[in-house]
Amino acid sequence: MTTKKDRSRQLRRAAEDDSPSAVNSASEDRRSFLRRSVSMAGVAVASSAAGLSAARAEPLAIPESNKKMGRPIPETDYGMPIEFEDHVKRRRTDVFVNKQNWSDWSMTPLQHQVGIVTPNGLFFERHHAGVAQINPDEHRLAIHGLVERPLVFTMDDLMRYPSVSRFHFLECSGNTLTDWAEPKATTVQQTHGLLSCGQWTGIPMAWLLDEAGVKPEGKWAILEGADGSAHLRSIPLEKMMDDVLLAFGQNGEMLRAEQGYPIRAIIPGWEGNTNVKWLRRIKIVDQPMHARSETARYTDPMPDGKWRQFSMTMECKSVITNPSGGMSLNGPGLYEIRGFAWSGNGSITNVDVTLDGGRSWREATVEGPVMPMCLTRFRYNWQWDGGPAKIASRAVDDTGYVQPTVEDLARAREIVGFVQHHNGIFPWNVSESGEVQNAIA
Amino acid sequence: MTTKKDRSRQLRRAAEDDSPSAVNSASEDRRSFLRRSVSMAGVAVASSAAGLSAARAEPLAIPESNKKMGRPIPETDYGMPIEFEDHVKRRRTDVFVNKQNWSDWSMTPLQHQVGIVTPNGLFFERHHAGVAQINPDEHRLAIHGLVERPLVFTMDDLMRYPSVSRFHFLECSGNTLTDWAEPKATTVQQTHGLLSCGQWTGIPMAWLLDEAGVKPEGKWAILEGADGSAHLRSIPLEKMMDDVLLAFGQNGEMLRAEQGYPIRAIIPGWEGNTNVKWLRRIKIVDQPMHARSETARYTDPMPDGKWRQFSMTMECKSVITNPSGGMSLNGPGLYEIRGFAWSGNGSITNVDVTLDGGRSWREATVEGPVMPMCLTRFRYNWQWDGGPAKIASRAVDDTGYVQPTVEDLARAREIVGFVQHHNGIFPWNVSESGEVQNAIA
Repeated sequence: MTTKKDRSRQLRRAAEDDSPSAVNSASEDRRSFLRRSVSMAGVAVASSAAGLSAARAEPLAIPESNKKMGRPIPETDYGMPIEFEDHVKRRRTDVFVNKQNWSDWSMTPLQHQVGIVTPNGLFFERHHAGVAQINPDEHRLAIHGLVERPLVFTMDDLMRYPSVSRFHFLECSGNTLTDWAEPKATTVQQTHGLLSCGQWTGIPMAWLLDEAGVKPEGKWAILEGADGSAHLRSIPLEKMMDDVLLAFGQNGEMLRAEQGYPIRAIIPGWEGNTNVKWLRRIKIVDQPMHARSETARYTDPMPDGKWRQFSMTMECKSVITNPSGGMSLNGPGLYEIRGFAWSGNGSITNVDVTLDGGRSWREATVEGPVMPMCLTRFRYNWQWDGGPAKIASRAVDDTGYVQPTVEDLARAREIVGFVQHHNGIFPWNVSESGEVQNAIA
Repeated sequence: MTTKKDRSRQLRRAAEDDSPSAVNSASEDRRSFLRRSVSMAGVAVASSAAGLSAARAEPLAIPESNKKMGRPIPETDYGMPIEFEDHVKRRRTDVFVNKQNWSDWSMTPLQHQVGIVTPNGLFFERHHAGVAQINPDEHRLAIHGLVERPLVFTMDDLMRYPSVSRFHFLECSGNTLTDWAEPKATTVQQTHGLLSCGQWTGIPMAWLLDEAGVKPEGKWAILEGADGSAHLRSIPLEKMMDDVLLAFGQNGEMLRAEQGYPIRAIIPGWEGNTNVKWLRRIKIVDQPMHARSETARYTDPMPDGKWRQFSMTMECKSVITNPSGGMSLNGPGLYEIRGFAWSGNGSITNVDVTLDGGRSWREATVEGPVMPMCLTRFRYNWQWDGGPAKIASRAVDDTGYVQPTVEDLARAREIVGFVQHHNGIFPWNVSESGEVQNAIA
């Protein structure tokens, strides 16, 4: 048990160490958050001034719920959240008026997400012609083009294959689209909610392409969906053979309709729209197709007037979700700053937090399991003194890449039109009254 | 990219290596599942005899879903599974008639679970007086008894604390209860479905107990729920200070009502009923309470006529979920045997699979991430020859403990009444016609 106790104490100490006011000596290790806050505030009792509070009291009166039976359960059921959590929902954009909902999206309430797993009912989604409803008995997947043996699979065929499960984030290339130069979105759901994370189950594409036998001249794969937009993207064969999955499962169950039921591509670390949903065919070709989603959309304007194509990797990024826009702090005291970091190029190694708009940085605690191309939690104990603050996070991945500022990005790119791939450092202002607001500028 | 490609190839090879008929030489590494199956069957074309099949065909006709718009999305929404997956539900017991549903349970459809995360809507649950519906604004948690400072927390107080997130399985001590000596349940949902896994978010209990200041004579904690049964359990203080969480989050969102909303104990690796839900008080005492759930229930009959108390750790166990009871195999060929392994004492290190009722064992592939006291996936490529088979799995954890047979358990324990803690090796019979049935005997 000693080992486990040591580990537990280390965890506890790690959380405390982050506080600028932490008591770090081993002998004082067990001093509590509450008592530390109290003694720091210089008052004798737990109070609202301490931030973390609890009343001293005798055991409670017995609540009504102890005196009656609860709800019975049905014979069969697929459970839903309790009514008190009704405010936790996916939402369409609040930032500008989208008059139709055929080519549309809905965003994950990241400010309410705990841990790294996004529940399937809250998983962000983006579609180009509504959400296709596909009967799996009728669905077919073709692999054709530059292959030795063109093949057509039924879902029964595919479900017979061995499969693997891996945790990966999914992010729309347009995430944070509206907040390049001025604050537009009010909440982190609206600034960063085109981001979610789950455990995907599927068949490595390499296994299926081996079945068909890719010819030497085959260099790209065109993936096409069975939706009304016939959404398609060209993916380099090297990526397809590396880590792409033909996914049928998400967070323990079959894909939801809006995630591409019955099958989709999962292209770890690459922009959401390359992860083609409702996948119906894979055509092996010798060069990319330069489809609409590779020319008129999902490209980056550059200072020389040209547009960059095929910038498909979502680079290292992070955001503070608590506290974040729309929240308010209830007086000075200890607050845990929490957020997500992720990188399409690998694993997160470090996250720093600033409290003063980037003048100084402090190391946050990164919480395991840390997995490649997966959301990673960070946290930092902040003793808020009640003054104005500008908080932000900055992530580093295992390639050594450091999340840039918006100014850095603006020097390399041209900020016009629907600019994609905003992975800049994102600040929140905290006012003296504790109001938290989008501070992008 | 070379490293990633190597890793990918290793993964692919690992899956192939498990097959007793695998072609393992590096030069033949890329030979496909389909072609291998075909050549083994000694026929020239992909056919149903090969097991894994796919038709050779030209690209498909364009499906109807490509020719029309899909469903629009609502302004706000909490998504649900598509209608084609309506059969994937939690279920009450089918094994014996439970005439009331106040002290009852519903079971996870493990045969349909992919990956290690159980969706919250399918997470098993057990309650003793219905599912309490608690308004978080009215809920209080008291810590009292042998402490320096008795404390009462509101939910707002608790949500201000730093928190951590950890993946852990949860298993009812009565899981597999009905299948000790003769087959009673027909599906793995009924034999093993009082088992689920999720990422829990909460406050380490050690932090809160430090706030209250446990007196030296405090050795146990009594945890009591706010439900109609006032369910309570005595937990050793050492475990409380080690790794117990006061959890408010599960798989990315707040707890579901049936999981103890707004707060519950998560006691990693210990039987489900010790993870007290709707937690309203923690009383520190010098000895256990010997409550009903510690005397008349959740105890183990022993050969000497006495009953063992406080056997709260769920020992190392595993089960094959695919193929499992109620399924049928569609002719000889390659099948991936899949299942779960877990241990309340640590991490899974090995899983073996038998195809002949335990006469011989072969090593299965264990899939990461492997985490302590967490469901772990295993898989094994089985080339079924069409003859009768008796398949089972056997797990080993990092303490060196090997999952026992039922016969082993029966030698150490007395199999009478509601015998708990059945972690024995669990076999399925596969008939010549491919029918899979419970083979416990």
